[in-house]
Amino acid sequence: MPVVNRSMIAQQTEAAKLASLRVVLLAGGVGGAKLAHGLAAHLRPENYTIIVNNGDDFQHWGLTICPDLDTVVYTLAGVANPETGWGRADESWRVLGEVERLGGPAWFRLGDLDLALHLSRNHALTNGVSLTEFTCELTGRLGIGPTILPMCDRPAPTLIETDDGLLSFQDWFVRQQWQPPVRRVQLPEDVRASYQVLRALEQADVVIFAPSNPFVSLDPILNVYPLRAMITDLPELTLAVSPIIAGQAVKGPAAKMMQEMGLPVTAVAVADYYRDLIDAFIYDVQDDTTWPDPNFPYRRLNTMMYTPTDRIHFAGELLQFALELLDQ
Amino acid sequence: MPVVNRSMIAQQTEAAKLASLRVVLLAGGVGGAKLAHGLAAHLRPENYTIIVNNGDDFQHWGLTICPDLDTVVYTLAGVANPETGWGRADESWRVLGEVERLGGPAWFRLGDLDLALHLSRNHALTNGVSLTEFTCELTGRLGIGPTILPMCDRPAPTLIETDDGLLSFQDWFVRQQWQPPVRRVQLPEDVRASYQVLRALEQADVVIFAPSNPFVSLDPILNVYPLRAMITDLPELTLAVSPIIAGQAVKGPAAKMMQEMGLPVTAVAVADYYRDLIDAFIYDVQDDTTWPDPNFPYRRLNTMMYTPTDRIHFAGELLQFALELLDQ
Repeated sequence: MPVVNRSMIAQQTEAAKLASLRVVLLAGGVGGAKLAHGLAAHLRPENYTIIVNNGDDFQHWGLTICPDLDTVVYTLAGVANPETGWGRADESWRVLGEVERLGGPAWFRLGDLDLALHLSRNHALTNGVSLTEFTCELTGRLGIGPTILPMCDRPAPTLIETDDGLLSFQDWFVRQQWQPPVRRVQLPEDVRASYQVLRALEQADVVIFAPSNPFVSLDPILNVYPLRAMITDLPELTLAVSPIIAGQAVKGPAAKMMQEMGLPVTAVAVADYYRDLIDAFIYDVQDDTTWPDPNFPYRRLNTMMYTPTDRIHFAGELLQFALELLDQ
Repeated sequence: MPVVNRSMIAQQTEAAKLASLRVVLLAGGVGGAKLAHGLAAHLRPENYTIIVNNGDDFQHWGLTICPDLDTVVYTLAGVANPETGWGRADESWRVLGEVERLGGPAWFRLGDLDLALHLSRNHALTNGVSLTEFTCELTGRLGIGPTILPMCDRPAPTLIETDDGLLSFQDWFVRQQWQPPVRRVQLPEDVRASYQVLRALEQADVVIFAPSNPFVSLDPILNVYPLRAMITDLPELTLAVSPIIAGQAVKGPAAKMMQEMGLPVTAVAVADYYRDLIDAFIYDVQDDTTWPDPNFPYRRLNTMMYTPTDRIHFAGELLQFALELLDQ
């Protein structure tokens, strides 16, 4: 039965290609974490690195909090809160309640289990361990196979220039629930990548931009020197996934920000925003936008990741698309 | 009925004297906290200040922990763990358990409610609030009347020179359960008192040394410049309470340390140790030591404070003794 044989050979070839494919995902918070998790089902852990935005890191209760990084870690460890996408499942709030009673700030909701990570990290950082080293040790202990890297080891805070003045990211995002209209996102100068981030990008066959916010999740990573130049110059295949579906953001302020920044709220506008960096673009099957440039590779996929099964399925189709492009 | 009247007048005089008596207590942890609590039942809050050792402060999980200070605060707020004397009643350990699972250090047992204080303080300190200011705000919020002051606002770590080398205080005290034999206690140079501490001492009629460890609780306070000189020079009445009863410490390493330092383990040796600073001494009725110096005022009282009632009773007798000495 030659048909079956051909199919088997094709499957084996596919599997062999996937087994050697070196992938770097650039990710923000919840959307990035879901795709990160989906990809982990297909890729060899030693060939797979997730570089996470930590421009949203901030100091709270004197601790360094890394919301996006922790969301990715919790999701890959299988301990994330499935309802919110961030924070821990089976969380409790005893410390927060008491901090509030003692007059401390309680607007940023840190649960007891979540706090344990912040305290462990605070212990490590104050003892001279880098954020990258700590994250590496943590993921090992949590049984996470892929490498999760913060985009950099020094504080690189994203600031939001709003109609209400210049706000720190979490002040704008959580405290004010991203309501103050955004004029501009201010990214710090002179942030440098760790050698772990550089090495992962140098070795990558495929770089994927997660369906995260282009301005406050992906741009902070790309702003880290010399990542934008590397992604432009290196021969690897770069793909981006649209966080905008039919004029709306799946989650968070991406659509609202595009409007405020005078951009059309479309997947195509996102693709244009990344245009100098990417080789192909993916947007959702629910979005009936006609792709404007027949010479620029794109694919419409079911990008909605409601369940872990959705994540794995979407990640498989995305990788299939990548392999096809690499074959060309 | 003139007898009754005289008694009433005497009581009123006593009450009036107590109402205007300005008292400063120098205190370490559990024993100091109990006497601090007992005295609060008799004194006007505005006339009563507790200066607490914070030579035992240390950094853990990147937070500033002030064990003695917190023990005094919890005791006066009525939220201390009645079994241990330190930590919070109705405590839980969810964060600690998770920190341990994540590979963080768990030898110093920080409960969830206790952590809320350390985090609130860490938030304040990292925002430029002094330890004194924070403590003042905290005690106000907890409904504590008397003023509780850390002995100083800058770190002033007590170090323990042992047969096993130089150890930080909590490493020796908690981690190694004060087992390494002590050669010498090293106190820092150039620690200066806050103006709040200076003012309280300047205005005091009576200074009381709590039945705390002379070497690691009282000496660190007295070592803060210029407290030793002030207590020697100012005309206030200074009383000390023995932490040693019939050759044993009520709690902790005081007796063991005296032995290791070549001192007799007696109340009289404690009195001798404080001799240049104090005007009178109190030791326990259970201790049948004969007082050696008939010219030096002393009193034997029931100093054991098992219950809150014990504390109040002992504090009342102590103040009675102080008033008698002031009348002379």
